[in-house]
Amino acid sequence: MKNCVLCADILKPEEGELVWRGDDCRIVLVNDPDLPGFCRIIWNHHVGEMSELTFGEREVLMSLVFVVEDAIRHVMQPSKVNLASLGNQVPHLHWHIIPRYADDAFFPGSVWSTRTQQTPGSVLEVRKQKARDLPEAIRAAISQLH
Amino acid sequence: MKNCVLCADILKPEEGELVWRGDDCRIVLVNDPDLPGFCRIIWNHHVGEMSELTFGEREVLMSLVFVVEDAIRHVMQPSKVNLASLGNQVPHLHWHIIPRYADDAFFPGSVWSTRTQQTPGSVLEVRKQKARDLPEAIRAAISQLH
Repeated sequence: MKNCVLCADILKPEEGELVWRGDDCRIVLVNDPDLPGFCRIIWNHHVGEMSELTFGEREVLMSLVFVVEDAIRHVMQPSKVNLASLGNQVPHLHWHIIPRYADDAFFPGSVWSTRTQQTPGSVLEVRKQKARDLPEAIRAAISQLH
Repeated sequence: MKNCVLCADILKPEEGELVWRGDDCRIVLVNDPDLPGFCRIIWNHHVGEMSELTFGEREVLMSLVFVVEDAIRHVMQPSKVNLASLGNQVPHLHWHIIPRYADDAFFPGSVWSTRTQQTPGSVLEVRKQKARDLPEAIRAAISQLH
């Protein structure tokens, strides 16, 4: 769709790293300084809502969401994982999969809530190092799906 | 789990209305004055993350999430539906399914973001009336699943 940033499908290096691309969707490791390990799955075609997909397409997409959740749990060892498909600002189907920690910048709120604290820099640095292992862990898990 | 408000499974009338209860989960129409039509699906047992469920359980739960999304789209005619499984404050698996409108109190942010505007009372009243049809629409759709 014209003027849709997700249809444009351009990922600037400062925005994140493309982890995996399939026929239906792509997975990005988001470069968020407060939330290392934040991943996003973007449906390639312009669709607004999950219930606009066929049952098979929903299954494909949710399987990937849960693969990423599982990889985040194993690699990042978070206190909690947050899953969300909002799209109020960009109504092109995409899922946020976010590792959360009791000392992260927004805990216990959502990552769209008011900032509550500053995570120690040394802690963030350790998490950024861990997040470097995520792309390979996600790709390995996806290869097991087929 | 002890001290978990969702394990306690007590729904006060002012919190919302029980729409449907199954062996695995229950569906509540949340009484949120700003967001008529807001629904929540709660997994009955204490589980933290989607990837702790079996593949079959995930499918059951997500089928219900999409049934509710679809019913919300038909009954409430929102601009967008938001789906989220967060659980930072209550780490017992539950999904929020929320109809969103360009004039709602938090648009275009998440419903956990800063309030942006006041929806006109007459508009909210119409939406509250529509939301009264949701429980029956959801139950009818679930009966078609089986």
